[in-house]
Amino acid sequence: MLIRERLVEGFETGVVASAGLLAHGRGESFDYLLGEKTTSNALKAMKAAAALLLTARQPVISVNGNAAALAARDMVKLAKEINAKIEVNLFHRSLQREVAIANLLQEAGADEVRGVGEASSAEIPEVASERRRVDPKGILAADAVLVPLEDGDRTQALVKMHKKVIAIDLNPLSRTAQSATVTIVDNIVRAMPTLTKIAKKLRTEHKKKLRKLASSFDNKKNLSEAIKMINKRLATLAAKGTYLTILEESEI
Amino acid sequence: MLIRERLVEGFETGVVASAGLLAHGRGESFDYLLGEKTTSNALKAMKAAAALLLTARQPVISVNGNAAALAARDMVKLAKEINAKIEVNLFHRSLQREVAIANLLQEAGADEVRGVGEASSAEIPEVASERRRVDPKGILAADAVLVPLEDGDRTQALVKMHKKVIAIDLNPLSRTAQSATVTIVDNIVRAMPTLTKIAKKLRTEHKKKLRKLASSFDNKKNLSEAIKMINKRLATLAAKGTYLTILEESEI
Repeated sequence: MLIRERLVEGFETGVVASAGLLAHGRGESFDYLLGEKTTSNALKAMKAAAALLLTARQPVISVNGNAAALAARDMVKLAKEINAKIEVNLFHRSLQREVAIANLLQEAGADEVRGVGEASSAEIPEVASERRRVDPKGILAADAVLVPLEDGDRTQALVKMHKKVIAIDLNPLSRTAQSATVTIVDNIVRAMPTLTKIAKKLRTEHKKKLRKLASSFDNKKNLSEAIKMINKRLATLAAKGTYLTILEESEI
Repeated sequence: MLIRERLVEGFETGVVASAGLLAHGRGESFDYLLGEKTTSNALKAMKAAAALLLTARQPVISVNGNAAALAARDMVKLAKEINAKIEVNLFHRSLQREVAIANLLQEAGADEVRGVGEASSAEIPEVASERRRVDPKGILAADAVLVPLEDGDRTQALVKMHKKVIAIDLNPLSRTAQSATVTIVDNIVRAMPTLTKIAKKLRTEHKKKLRKLASSFDNKKNLSEAIKMINKRLATLAAKGTYLTILEESEI
């Protein structure tokens, strides 16, 4: 419930868009099907993600309204751990929201936030929404981009530009999940601190070992396993004839 | 997309609560897993639901913000077909929202809307939220209640009061779904017009036949089949290694 409150607060302060509330609801359903916990499957993806970020020349964390509302502090911590830049990138772009998000990130300890206003002067090809606008000193120059809660369009475009994309997405069937280099099927609130811990631990490893760890990861296979886990859980629940209480409070 | 717009408009006009946007998002995920279509499973439940409503002494349709924003016209049509009352019933109760919803229903052609303000003077036991407040001439007197998009608490309480409860819920595992007498696992936007058509068709049947149709329906079994359908679809999609585009536009 605390997560939901953070999001609604973010909505009230102009950080989260109304579409962001809908998107969060969609995520909640998948989280519920996953059992609201970080699976071994997600941990495997996190290891590959950490290895990828630690061996990148210029990693960037792309932040939208929901990510900022839910995990601003965690994103700043991870950025410091992996020496990454932070860039604001919105679907429903407005200077007001960009500034609100940048403020939230700075309050959370970020030294620099890219992508706000005129800084987003570059465009990535084949993306229709305002999300195509990126910072030439941020995402455009990056070789690895962490995109928590991203849209499929942009993930595909970034992959086409030969960037490594790490997605955090609760829906293993989404285009984002299926297009990314590494997909962490987990709730951002649980995934970010764990990913940071893993990055801290792997930081001292040889780059060669990390590169091998990243390149040996099979994202399609891992996603397929995530779907199987949901399936198994659904079958067990159906057999028990029990209900799940997590999503009970529709509150509508 | 049109559905989403209707909901966001409802939010902007004070009909839908912010929690309603989250709840709708949760529903979208389940709808996506169902393939965004009315299944044979849902049709089976609709037949039992129509039979139940047509043989009820006093059926009532319970309306919340989301239901009003998405299907006001359809609910009025069904109410006329089955001779049911319409009652506003909210989790986040406020006179302002009640009036906004009642206005929407009246614009959609409702002759009378129960449950607004002081009319909700009765309470149903064991429900903590403001949803326990009901209209003594509406839900309290009803023997059958149609609760589209309802919370589990109240569904259970109504069933305990020996009322027949018909739920429309996209999540077959929810407490609402598992507690109701008949659960239609479908999107309210698709379910309401179809349910109305079925009611129109069954209206001329003998009451005895309708009673048999209603009593022979096994809700637990039907829900278990709905879960199996989702499972089968997930397995097929995972095997294909394809992504689903429906939920792509996270727009956050």
